[in-house]
Amino acid sequence: MSVTISGGKLRRITRLAGLDGRFRMMAIDQRGSMEQAIQSATGEEAAYEQVAKMKTMITKILSPNSTAVLTDPIFGYPYSVMDVPRDVGLLLAFEESGYVDDGVGENERASVQIANWNIEKAIRSGADAIKLLIYYHPDASPSACNHQKDFTKYVGEQCQKYDLPFLLEFVCYSLDGESTNTLEFASQKPDLVIRSVEEFTKPQYKVDILKVEFPANLKFVEEYKDRDFYMGAPAYTLGEVEEFCRDLDAKSTLPWVILSAGVDIEEFIENVKISSAHGASGFLCGRAIWKDAVPLYPNEDAVAEFLRGEASVNFKNSNIAVSNATPWFDHKSFGGLKNIDLDKKGSNWYEIY
Amino acid sequence: MSVTISGGKLRRITRLAGLDGRFRMMAIDQRGSMEQAIQSATGEEAAYEQVAKMKTMITKILSPNSTAVLTDPIFGYPYSVMDVPRDVGLLLAFEESGYVDDGVGENERASVQIANWNIEKAIRSGADAIKLLIYYHPDASPSACNHQKDFTKYVGEQCQKYDLPFLLEFVCYSLDGESTNTLEFASQKPDLVIRSVEEFTKPQYKVDILKVEFPANLKFVEEYKDRDFYMGAPAYTLGEVEEFCRDLDAKSTLPWVILSAGVDIEEFIENVKISSAHGASGFLCGRAIWKDAVPLYPNEDAVAEFLRGEASVNFKNSNIAVSNATPWFDHKSFGGLKNIDLDKKGSNWYEIY
Repeated sequence: MSVTISGGKLRRITRLAGLDGRFRMMAIDQRGSMEQAIQSATGEEAAYEQVAKMKTMITKILSPNSTAVLTDPIFGYPYSVMDVPRDVGLLLAFEESGYVDDGVGENERASVQIANWNIEKAIRSGADAIKLLIYYHPDASPSACNHQKDFTKYVGEQCQKYDLPFLLEFVCYSLDGESTNTLEFASQKPDLVIRSVEEFTKPQYKVDILKVEFPANLKFVEEYKDRDFYMGAPAYTLGEVEEFCRDLDAKSTLPWVILSAGVDIEEFIENVKISSAHGASGFLCGRAIWKDAVPLYPNEDAVAEFLRGEASVNFKNSNIAVSNATPWFDHKSFGGLKNIDLDKKGSNWYEIY
Repeated sequence: MSVTISGGKLRRITRLAGLDGRFRMMAIDQRGSMEQAIQSATGEEAAYEQVAKMKTMITKILSPNSTAVLTDPIFGYPYSVMDVPRDVGLLLAFEESGYVDDGVGENERASVQIANWNIEKAIRSGADAIKLLIYYHPDASPSACNHQKDFTKYVGEQCQKYDLPFLLEFVCYSLDGESTNTLEFASQKPDLVIRSVEEFTKPQYKVDILKVEFPANLKFVEEYKDRDFYMGAPAYTLGEVEEFCRDLDAKSTLPWVILSAGVDIEEFIENVKISSAHGASGFLCGRAIWKDAVPLYPNEDAVAEFLRGEASVNFKNSNIAVSNATPWFDHKSFGGLKNIDLDKKGSNWYEIY
C-alpha cells in the first residue's frame, strides 16, 4: 500500500535532501548564541549589521556544501538569501530565539513565535520548509508541556495549510536548572530524547522531519576515553548508545536528522556516524561546523579564511559521515520512492488541490 | 542605483535559470496539440492516461537536461512532479489550452484561465513560476486586445501577491484566419512581435520574463535556402533578422527567452543562436526537442529510446546554442548581480514582508 503526501510537501522535501535522499543541512539561524559569540569576540554588544554580516559570510562560503540551509528571517534571510545557491534548499526558523518563562514553572521553558512573522510570509519568500525549535522536557509540568505541544500543533496545522514541510527540533533541558553536561543528565538523556520522539511523531503534530539531539552524550562513553571531549565517569557503553539510536529509530514514525547543539566537530562526527548507521537520515548542523570562525571577528579576512579552510573540511567530513544514513524515502514511514504517491492526483487534481 | 526585487521572486527566478543565469527550459505543458499528436499516432481519441503517460516519460527522461520544466496542472503536475529533479525549477501553466472566441471578432482569440485553478494553488504546490500564454495580435479589435491585456494584468497582480515570478508568452496569429507560414505573415512578423514586446513590458503587467516568438521566420530567409526548412521567396536577409533581434532587445525592459512553436529542431537551433547573440537569455522549448517521440506512441520502448537518443541530442544542441545568451541578471533591466537588491530588507524584514 502506498504512502501519500501532498505534491507541495513532496516537491519541497525533495529539495531539502540530496538526490541520494540524505540530508546534509547547515543551520545558520542562531540568534542569541551568535550575538553572544560576537560580543565575546569584540568585547562590545553585537550590532544588527555585525550579526547579519557574519551570517552572510557563513552562508556564502559554506552553503554550497549543503543540500539545504536553515536561516532566520531577522538577520539571515534579508541579507543572505542571494547567497543560497539555486540547488540548495531553504528552511526558515519560526520561533523567537531562546524561550520565555511566563506561565510555566521555575526553570521551565516555553517557546514563542517571532512576532509578526508567519507561515504565509515564509512560503511567499521561497522557503522550502519551516523549522520550529522547542525546548521540551517530558517530565516538565503539564502547563509547560501543553504549551509546547499546542505551539507545535499550531505550527503543524499552518504548515499543512500551505503544504510547507515542517521540521521540528526539540531540545531537552534540566528541570533543576543545572548544566546538561553532567553524568546524571547524560544518564537520563536517552530516555528523555526517545520519549520526546514518541510524543512528537504523533500524527496530530503534522511534523514531516524530526531534528533530534543525539540520544546519548559521548562525553560519558568509555570507548571515547582517549578523546579530548571525554568527561569521565561513563554513563553507558558504545553498544548501549547504538541501541538507543535503534530504539529511537524504531519509535520514530518520521525520518529524523541529528543536530549538533554546538558540540565540537570531533564529537559531532561520531554522533553522525553512529546515528547514520542506525536509522538517521542525515544532519542539520550549525555550530559544530563553523563556530570557531566567530571569535576571529571582526577580522573578516581571518573569518573567511577559516570558513574556506577548516570549516569546509568540517563540512566535508560531516558529509562523509552520513554515507550510511537512511535516505528519507527509504525510512519505514515511506518505504521507498516507488511506494510514495500524491495524496491527490488524477484529471481533476487542479480543482481539488 | 540598484534594482530591487522581492525576495520570493528573486529566489525563484534563480531556480529557473542555471548558475550561469541562462534559461534552458523545457515545455511539456502542451494539451490540445499533445492530444492531437497522440490521436494521430494511435488513430483513436487520446485518453487522459495516455497524455499523462507521455508527459511523464518526456519529463522523466529529458528534464535533467533543463534548468526548469514547464508543465500543466491537468495532465502534467499530478503525474510528473516526482520526475522533476530537485535542482530543476518548476513552472506551471495558468491558461486553458487553446483560446475562445466569445466577445471578440471573427478569427480573433481570447485566452481564459483553467477553471478552478489559481495562483495560490500553484505556489502551494511548489511552483517556482507561473506561465501565461496569450494569443495576441496588436491590430486585433480593441475588445480582443483589451481582453488579453486585462487577463495579463490580472495574472501579474496575482503573481505579485504571492511573489511568484510571472513568465508571459505571447503568440501572434493571422487576423484573416490564414496560416502564419506565409511570405506575407513572415514579412509582418518582426513588427508584430516587437510591438507586442513594447506593450507587455509595460510595468502595469508585472511580467518578470518574456517568452517570445523568434521575431522573424527563417523559412523565408535566403541565407537558409539550402536548408530543408526553407520555403522560398525571401522576406528579409539574415542581417535584417539580426537587427530585428537587436530591436526587440532594445525595446524589452525584461529578460526574454525564445519559444519553439513546434518548428523543427534545425530551425529552432538557428533561432536560439541568433537571438542569443543579440540579447536573449535562453529558451523555453518543447516540441522542437521532443515532438518526434509522440508518433512512436503507444510503443513506449520506442518513445523512450527516441527520448534518450535523438531528443536528448536535440536538447544538448539547444543548450550549446545558448552559450552566448545574456544571463538574466546581466540584462539591462538588472545590470548585473551586484546591482540587484531586495525591495525590502533590514532588521524588520520579517515584519514588513
